Amino acid sequence: MRDTSVTEHHGLRGRLHTVIAHPRVQTGILVLIIVNAILLGMETSPRIVAAYGDLIRLADTAILAVFVTEIAIRLFVHRARFFTDPWSLFDFAVVTIALVPASGPFSVLRALRVLRVLRVLTIVPSMRRVVGALLGAVPGLLSIGMVLVLIYYVCAVIATNLFGAAFPDWFGNIGRSFYSLFQIMTLESWSMGISRPVMQEFPYAWAFFIPFILIATFTMLNLFIGVIVDAMQTVSEAEHADTLDALDRTQEHIEADVHAEVRALRDEIRSLRTLLEARAAP
Amino acid sequence: MRDTSVTEHHGLRGRLHTVIAHPRVQTGILVLIIVNAILLGMETSPRIVAAYGDLIRLADTAILAVFVTEIAIRLFVHRARFFTDPWSLFDFAVVTIALVPASGPFSVLRALRVLRVLRVLTIVPSMRRVVGALLGAVPGLLSIGMVLVLIYYVCAVIATNLFGAAFPDWFGNIGRSFYSLFQIMTLESWSMGISRPVMQEFPYAWAFFIPFILIATFTMLNLFIGVIVDAMQTVSEAEHADTLDALDRTQEHIEADVHAEVRALRDEIRSLRTLLEARAAP
Amino acid sequence: MRDTSVTEHHGLRGRLHTVIAHPRVQTGILVLIIVNAILLGMETSPRIVAAYGDLIRLADTAILAVFVTEIAIRLFVHRARFFTDPWSLFDFAVVTIALVPASGPFSVLRALRVLRVLRVLTIVPSMRRVVGALLGAVPGLLSIGMVLVLIYYVCAVIATNLFGAAFPDWFGNIGRSFYSLFQIMTLESWSMGISRPVMQEFPYAWAFFIPFILIATFTMLNLFIGVIVDAMQTVSEAEHADTLDALDRTQEHIEADVHAEVRALRDEIRSLRTLLEARAAP
Amino acid sequence: MRDTSVTEHHGLRGRLHTVIAHPRVQTGILVLIIVNAILLGMETSPRIVAAYGDLIRLADTAILAVFVTEIAIRLFVHRARFFTDPWSLFDFAVVTIALVPASGPFSVLRALRVLRVLRVLTIVPSMRRVVGALLGAVPGLLSIGMVLVLIYYVCAVIATNLFGAAFPDWFGNIGRSFYSLFQIMTLESWSMGISRPVMQEFPYAWAFFIPFILIATFTMLNLFIGVIVDAMQTVSEAEHADTLDALDRTQEHIEADVHAEVRALRDEIRSLRTLLEARAAP
Repeated sequence: MRDTSVTEHHGLRGRLHTVIAHPRVQTGILVLIIVNAILLGMETSPRIVAAYGDLIRLADTAILAVFVTEIAIRLFVHRARFFTDPWSLFDFAVVTIALVPASGPFSVLRALRVLRVLRVLTIVPSMRRVVGALLGAVPGLLSIGMVLVLIYYVCAVIATNLFGAAFPDWFGNIGRSFYSLFQIMTLESWSMGISRPVMQEFPYAWAFFIPFILIATFTMLNLFIGVIVDAMQTVSEAEHADTLDALDRTQEHIEADVHAEVRALRDEIRSLRTLLEARAAP
Repeated sequence: MRDTSVTEHHGLRGRLHTVIAHPRVQTGILVLIIVNAILLGMETSPRIVAAYGDLIRLADTAILAVFVTEIAIRLFVHRARFFTDPWSLFDFAVVTIALVPASGPFSVLRALRVLRVLRVLTIVPSMRRVVGALLGAVPGLLSIGMVLVLIYYVCAVIATNLFGAAFPDWFGNIGRSFYSLFQIMTLESWSMGISRPVMQEFPYAWAFFIPFILIATFTMLNLFIGVIVDAMQTVSEAEHADTLDALDRTQEHIEADVHAEVRALRDEIRSLRTLLEARAAP
Repeated sequence: MRDTSVTEHHGLRGRLHTVIAHPRVQTGILVLIIVNAILLGMETSPRIVAAYGDLIRLADTAILAVFVTEIAIRLFVHRARFFTDPWSLFDFAVVTIALVPASGPFSVLRALRVLRVLRVLTIVPSMRRVVGALLGAVPGLLSIGMVLVLIYYVCAVIATNLFGAAFPDWFGNIGRSFYSLFQIMTLESWSMGISRPVMQEFPYAWAFFIPFILIATFTMLNLFIGVIVDAMQTVSEAEHADTLDALDRTQEHIEADVHAEVRALRDEIRSLRTLLEARAAP
Repeated sequence: MRDTSVTEHHGLRGRLHTVIAHPRVQTGILVLIIVNAILLGMETSPRIVAAYGDLIRLADTAILAVFVTEIAIRLFVHRARFFTDPWSLFDFAVVTIALVPASGPFSVLRALRVLRVLRVLTIVPSMRRVVGALLGAVPGLLSIGMVLVLIYYVCAVIATNLFGAAFPDWFGNIGRSFYSLFQIMTLESWSMGISRPVMQEFPYAWAFFIPFILIATFTMLNLFIGVIVDAMQTVSEAEHADTLDALDRTQEHIEADVHAEVRALRDEIRSLRTLLEARAAP
């Protein structure tokens, strides 16, 4: 396991913790995830399923059983603490998906079983760091993201009111307007596909679309700049702190040097005084 | 209110200012804005309007009355100063839109009532900061933006002269050329949608479109780089100023230290001289 | 004029130089350029030309006469030096275009008369700085740009050889391949418009297009990063130089302080020695 | 040659090394590459091939012979070391392509002969640096790139399972899903071309496509930010190291100055002591 908080426990929990946190067990899980990924990939081919379908399904079930066991052991070992670790929660969620009966309205969950493969992200340390860094950039984007959502909402209501009746496929309700505005923000077919047809009906529609594009892309751009500046600042703050430290060390070194020199001078003056006083004594 | 310049006023103005600037009143306004946003969103659905149309319209009018009263009080409290605060002007403008009779040529204003929701940006401090930062980046972009407008104008005139007769929908007049060039700069369907058809008629049209794309995107890119470099510079200037301060403090500290040491030395030399003079006296 | 190298000349050249470099004359030229821009814009409207065509053409000719006179005077004043200033050459080129008889194969030049409006860039100092900065970024991009051209050439030859016979409109010759690859690099309709149709014929065409997109956009990206890093480096080098200066000043200040202190000490020691020697004399 | 490790060899190998590493020989090779590039470009035009085809093919073969000879000599000179230099391996690979009989399944190799032109990148030092810098940015992108591949794989499996049956051209198997997801990530026709048609069949398909676009572009963005921050860090680390050096030098200079001053003081005190002792002697 990644936190070492359970190592002090003895008995069954401690032993199970040692087993499950063992590098070889972790590597084994990683191998199983990759094998599982390949199997789930093979299952998309009707030809392979026709030939080896039963075998693949069997292996998939076996691997799932191992994953469920591993999660169960981790739950037993870490108890409530398991649910405070976001990585563990992620593992729990993607494994649980496969246990929900994928029938009726939940048939889409069958396709989501492959999310299990994302457990690679939680096991390989270098990938974990990358995901951590990606997610770490998100909070700094929240307030600008909320501004973007607000602009979206206002523009979606306006677009629905103005163009909804004439272009129901694109702006028929708020949901469709949201989707169409997202498409426009990505600049995909915004003019030839959406804006020019709308302008056939409403010649001044450009006065809505072009400001929307300018505002939305400028805001996105600033969101993006925020991430860059944050990343740069982390580097540059570390260097700045290092410069200040070096400055402190330089100051201490110079002062220590001055003190040592002055102490030597004082010794000489003091020995001079001793000499004088010795001569004054008799 | 956000400026505290009126707090010294007593009487009705002072009391009203206290009321309207009270955090609870501000939160109440925020809640009303959000309720209003939801109502305006619901009004886009014909099904909901058919069922609860009267109720929604009533609530909308009631909320509008509250907003008008709030703005009126703020006008009474701040008087001329109200119109010097851009945030207040914004509030004034988006609330006023709803009072214009939305009929005939102004029917589009009905759709703009939702702009009122943007008042969230002026009330929530964190969003206000984001919007302030976004707008703060604009002045630095003005001169490069003017270069871009000039390039646009020149290219729009050229495109209208060259392609206007053959492709009136795209380049029929300066306005249409401006729109088409903006579309080309966003790279949306520039080749398959515009440039290739034009090249059927004018085989050398690429000699206009490709340089335009290169120049326009390179200029946009520099506009964008300007924003990044500005943001970085703010960070790095603060650190630089801090380094210089630390250097000054180091210098002062070392010199104070040297002075203290030298003072001690001087005291010793002076006491030596006193000793010498004492012995010379008799 | 912008260079003051002629101010020492007396006689006609000196006087003409004073006249033409006078701020009011410069402002007059600027106003004429803007009026000219508006006239050239009006000329794109057949309705306006039908009504005021003669008037517009007359004003255009008059303004052109002023420009030609101004350039002629500058040529007379600066002589050979005129052709070493790139801004002057630019003014010369865009004014000259209007003098070429715009008939037969040169009829396209009529449309280029509006380039004259770009003289605003050479007259307004803030725009001149922007253009200077934009052009200043170009040399640093040359070597990476040459790598991009080489990649383009190789890919254009490959595409022409592989797909030229089957898709003559897109890859029929090197020129067309260059154009199509540029379109693909801008990501415009690269898949739905070009790559998917080609893959109908050559199923492995993706093995050409996707690497091309990855390499071309990654190279473009680095070109772009080059501009950002350059701009940042300019800022950060200035600050670094300033830090080193401040460090030098700090060193000098501390050492001057130490010298002054030590000089004072020496004076005391010397006066002590004088005292000793004085007492030893008798 | 670019490495000088062979210069100590004498005899035939040393002489051949001197010849082949001679600037004039290198320039000759460069000229041949450029001539070859032009010939290969001319070969794409059926009209030129009809007129001068034999001549071009002859020249091409002659140039190829020179290249093969050069590579052979370099192999003889450097032996095993040849295969450890990636630039040499690149030269070897692009020249070898032309020797494979380009018939039957290998006919595509004929088109790849032009890759030979990329040898310019390995010969011109400034281009070599650019390519080195481009490739140098790649390792830092590996871990984030692997995260991207993993996201791609998971989404490709999901898309194949969900949409494969209904849209075999786009999501019929994992390969096609990979291609379509790449297209979607480049934002080319993602909505009008792919997502909207899919939503006709699966109304909730946007819940797959929009998160995919957000995650994929955000990850790509961070990949890109990684390159910028790395480039900036290189600059800023150099400056930081220089600042620390300057600080060290300042410290040494101040301390040396203090030592010198203190030594002078000591000398005076010592001569004072000599004076005192001299007077005490008699």
